Amino acid sequence: MSSPRSGCEILCIGTELLLGNILNGNARWLAESLASLGIPHFRQGVVGDNPERLREAVVEAAGRSRLLICTGGLGPTPDDLTTETLAACFGVPLEERPEVLADLEAKLRARGRSLGVSNRKQALLPQGAEVLPNPTGTAPGIIWTPQPGFTVLTFPGVPSEMRAMWQQTAVPWLKAQHLVSGTFRSRVLHFWGVSESSLAESVAPLLELSNPTVAPYAGQGEVKLRITAKGATASEADAVIAPVEQELRRIGAEHCFGADDDSLASVVLAELRARGETLAVAESCTGGGVGNALTGIPGSSDVFLGGVIAYANRIKQDLLQVPSELLEREGAVSAAVAQAMAEGARRQLGTDWGVAVTGVAGPGGGSDSKPVGLVHFAVAGPDGSSHLERRYGDRRGRDWIRGLSVGDALNLLRLRL
Amino acid sequence: MSSPRSGCEILCIGTELLLGNILNGNARWLAESLASLGIPHFRQGVVGDNPERLREAVVEAAGRSRLLICTGGLGPTPDDLTTETLAACFGVPLEERPEVLADLEAKLRARGRSLGVSNRKQALLPQGAEVLPNPTGTAPGIIWTPQPGFTVLTFPGVPSEMRAMWQQTAVPWLKAQHLVSGTFRSRVLHFWGVSESSLAESVAPLLELSNPTVAPYAGQGEVKLRITAKGATASEADAVIAPVEQELRRIGAEHCFGADDDSLASVVLAELRARGETLAVAESCTGGGVGNALTGIPGSSDVFLGGVIAYANRIKQDLLQVPSELLEREGAVSAAVAQAMAEGARRQLGTDWGVAVTGVAGPGGGSDSKPVGLVHFAVAGPDGSSHLERRYGDRRGRDWIRGLSVGDALNLLRLRL
Repeated sequence: MSSPRSGCEILCIGTELLLGNILNGNARWLAESLASLGIPHFRQGVVGDNPERLREAVVEAAGRSRLLICTGGLGPTPDDLTTETLAACFGVPLEERPEVLADLEAKLRARGRSLGVSNRKQALLPQGAEVLPNPTGTAPGIIWTPQPGFTVLTFPGVPSEMRAMWQQTAVPWLKAQHLVSGTFRSRVLHFWGVSESSLAESVAPLLELSNPTVAPYAGQGEVKLRITAKGATASEADAVIAPVEQELRRIGAEHCFGADDDSLASVVLAELRARGETLAVAESCTGGGVGNALTGIPGSSDVFLGGVIAYANRIKQDLLQVPSELLEREGAVSAAVAQAMAEGARRQLGTDWGVAVTGVAGPGGGSDSKPVGLVHFAVAGPDGSSHLERRYGDRRGRDWIRGLSVGDALNLLRLRL
Repeated sequence: MSSPRSGCEILCIGTELLLGNILNGNARWLAESLASLGIPHFRQGVVGDNPERLREAVVEAAGRSRLLICTGGLGPTPDDLTTETLAACFGVPLEERPEVLADLEAKLRARGRSLGVSNRKQALLPQGAEVLPNPTGTAPGIIWTPQPGFTVLTFPGVPSEMRAMWQQTAVPWLKAQHLVSGTFRSRVLHFWGVSESSLAESVAPLLELSNPTVAPYAGQGEVKLRITAKGATASEADAVIAPVEQELRRIGAEHCFGADDDSLASVVLAELRARGETLAVAESCTGGGVGNALTGIPGSSDVFLGGVIAYANRIKQDLLQVPSELLEREGAVSAAVAQAMAEGARRQLGTDWGVAVTGVAGPGGGSDSKPVGLVHFAVAGPDGSSHLERRYGDRRGRDWIRGLSVGDALNLLRLRL
């Protein structure tokens, strides 16, 4: 019935997933990472915090796969059962690891807390399992081969901890095990201002390639194309990627804003830094989202000086010097007010550039002439102002409109630069 | 090995899920719907568009579950294999359904297209399977009991089609089969300022209950407790929840800030709205994150007027009137500057309350006396100022420090109110 044992599967553990409380973002993230490493991944599973169900799922995986990646159930509470259930599956006792206990104590002490009984549980690992260190949180994972040809890796369910542990320890381990055969290299190109379907149509022949492969991913407003190549060496794989990247960039033209870890915020900051210029923001409907995106980039402070969150009209007047007659005549959501806000930010904060956003994020506040989803953007710079109007519609909701607005504001500035 | 056959599982079919191209929103949506119907749901699986893997997964489910809900693989293209693979699993032939074919032709005609060979495939269903009509798209699903005590329902992967079919046909069918027994209700309590492990210890006896169950979830800084109860009716289940909620709130005391859809931002805004008071922010290291969180809540504009993102010291002086000698003497990251910023926001923006954050988010910029992770908060209000200092450490990185800072800023204001 089963296929020969090979490949890899993912098992996410947590009743919150079965109750539909949260989206399974960990499975998606791991799947994307496995794909970029070129590790075949054939199956995903989800079980609750239930030892019997977890046991069934682990035994099945052990019978058909080389590698099982588990997330969740490593916390200190009684419903966190992953480690002890894994040990029981293979009839191996748990043992307290002094080095894990010491690490837990140090981490808790740094937070002004002492080691409780429930934390102590986190230092109990199956005999023979290797510790998979958790640099940020308390719960360590394990890398454990309980039977020949089957290895299980465990991670906490907290995404930031899981990701850090995956990158720092699991990926190097996978490479050392030669589970990554040949070398896969991948490069992600980022696009803004084009839909996934129209980008996919315009690059259709390239999506049929087998080495490198090209796959589109849609995010909120952003579209990514991942180019993945296999080669005997990294430089051979890179050489397979280069001409395809060049062709995709040519087709994507000004929509392509960067590669790999680039974000709209990081490319805008890098360009301004190279010019020795500074930036301020004036935000209404995004309420600080543009500033938040910019200051999310380490070292942003040499370019981004600050901004004004001008949610109320009075703040637009008082702090950004937007004329009250302009607000009355054109309304707060208008091209003229967006421009006055951008110029106000630039002037009041003494920067080279000002970016402004004003719109109707909804769900309330829309009208026939200014419906929910209407957003005006402006960029003021040394050589004058530019403006953009977007109508996102109201179907995708407030968060969607605000998220796209942050991206479009940064993209307008990027295209200006 | 297997548990007695009972309950329900979800199987999502699609290589795009294994490549991490998309989040598995269908699984989450179905899980939430099943939970609200009170149908025990024990497991989720994902396989690619691969008949061998799909077959394995179906055979496993048929051996342990009463009900299998499949999504994906019903389309017209060669990689859509769900219906024919299901038929093959149980050795049942496919037969063309004239009524499905007629429906397909009518739908395609309405779109100005004619029936192709690939569409014709969608009218082939296993002998004995009931049609699960698709009111919006072309692909119908099936409700099929290929062996006693095991029923499989299939849906397309397109979320809007799946949801419409679920609501219109599957839910009434589940009710008619008496698979909907009793009603599950759940309530989530939100906590801030307490760790998952210490909260879990303090409520430990309640985590052992069976109806309702209580389960903790940790997020970034926030801890949640989910109370889930079963009852003959919704009100009976609610009555099971109420005393446990009361006890958890008593134990959690001031750490418990809300329930269900509440967030720190929403409860702060609701409290200020009830008082008829207004709020402004002054943000340095969070760079707009506090404003972003507040304006994420619909209707925030009657309370939150705006703020100043004072990333550079000059902006703290110019827009918030923080005295330059204070900045020089105490440094930007200090209790005194946080207080001056909060008072400046309140005064310059003319609000009842001002909240300020200034800190070292890292990775650079730390010193021995002011290490990465040191953040000062202040709240200025009608009755004076309050201050909070946090040392988050530098191990969890910039995003973590900024995220916790947003929560702690809002929580300081909440506790003041």
